[in-house]
Amino acid sequence: MTDTENERTRSGRRPGRSGAKDAILAVARTRFAHSGFDKTSIRAIATEAGVDAALVHHYFGTKRELFVAAIAIPTDPTTVLRPVLAADRQDLGKALVTAIMAVWDSEHGEAVVAAFRSLIAEGDTTLIGSFLMEVVLREIAARVDEPTGSAPVRAGLVASQMSGLLLTRHILKVEPIASMPTEQVIASIAPTLQRYLTGPLP
Amino acid sequence: MTDTENERTRSGRRPGRSGAKDAILAVARTRFAHSGFDKTSIRAIATEAGVDAALVHHYFGTKRELFVAAIAIPTDPTTVLRPVLAADRQDLGKALVTAIMAVWDSEHGEAVVAAFRSLIAEGDTTLIGSFLMEVVLREIAARVDEPTGSAPVRAGLVASQMSGLLLTRHILKVEPIASMPTEQVIASIAPTLQRYLTGPLP
Repeated sequence: MTDTENERTRSGRRPGRSGAKDAILAVARTRFAHSGFDKTSIRAIATEAGVDAALVHHYFGTKRELFVAAIAIPTDPTTVLRPVLAADRQDLGKALVTAIMAVWDSEHGEAVVAAFRSLIAEGDTTLIGSFLMEVVLREIAARVDEPTGSAPVRAGLVASQMSGLLLTRHILKVEPIASMPTEQVIASIAPTLQRYLTGPLP
Repeated sequence: MTDTENERTRSGRRPGRSGAKDAILAVARTRFAHSGFDKTSIRAIATEAGVDAALVHHYFGTKRELFVAAIAIPTDPTTVLRPVLAADRQDLGKALVTAIMAVWDSEHGEAVVAAFRSLIAEGDTTLIGSFLMEVVLREIAARVDEPTGSAPVRAGLVASQMSGLLLTRHILKVEPIASMPTEQVIASIAPTLQRYLTGPLP
């Protein structure tokens, strides 16, 4: 299996079935973003996507798993994370904040923000944890596990900064962070992520 | 007017009237934390505190202003911020994260967390902004305004880290951040705040 195929499997996509799956994901993103996790049903998503509810479960498993697939992977993760995976070790911080902010600023950004906000409101903390750790940071954790076993702490510290940046910039819209040019945010935050990823830990 | 008196006025407390005001604040903290902003009424707070609703308005102004007073100042702000105001410039980052985490870990921490969460859910972003900027960071902004005019950016960057720390540690409970010893969190985060407060800006 090539890396690309492996990535697709992990993201819940399988080559050749993309029509129905993409339709389900598109509907799920919109519904979850507008109605939140609890008030969105698999049945409603299936109906709007023109498929049977059983097919949604077959492709995505539980509603939680569909939610993660829908909000965590708004675009092909290999595309989003490719610059991070390709970055030199000393550039990881800048590459990661750049990649994440590109998603927020993309056409999917609004859905990501709304979904994140509804998760906080509904207290589905397990899901956020798995979203941050399993999906966003999984790919790079192996590169920053020095000393061995430190990767979870490093990823958690990154999550503490990036979740707060999402909060202040896109949800709470705290000025001047909300209106700051992307390049200035990246330059401000990158050294923080770099230290969390590769710097000494207490 | 002494600094202490000035502080008390700013925090909404006046010497000699502390009985009714403290009762109102105590009830407001509990109600806001459990029911959120929208579902908590001034009338209900007044009734439970054994005072007239007009007295609540007289002391605290609008419901929003009462909310800020109740959640933003869980203890005497001069006590909480004293170590920060007394800290050497090169120790500001550690002093600030230490002071803020002490509030989260205090008896008032649960109410602060619940209130913050309900604000996010209800989208009352103006209030959060004023809470972060006017109350928490106001005292130290003057010390970090170098070059002149940079304080709001510095305060915003601090807010981006500390709001995310509150989120990952106390609301989303992302491990290993949620269970990390306070001293380890302080040592990890302090250099970030120090750079945001006194370091070069892009």
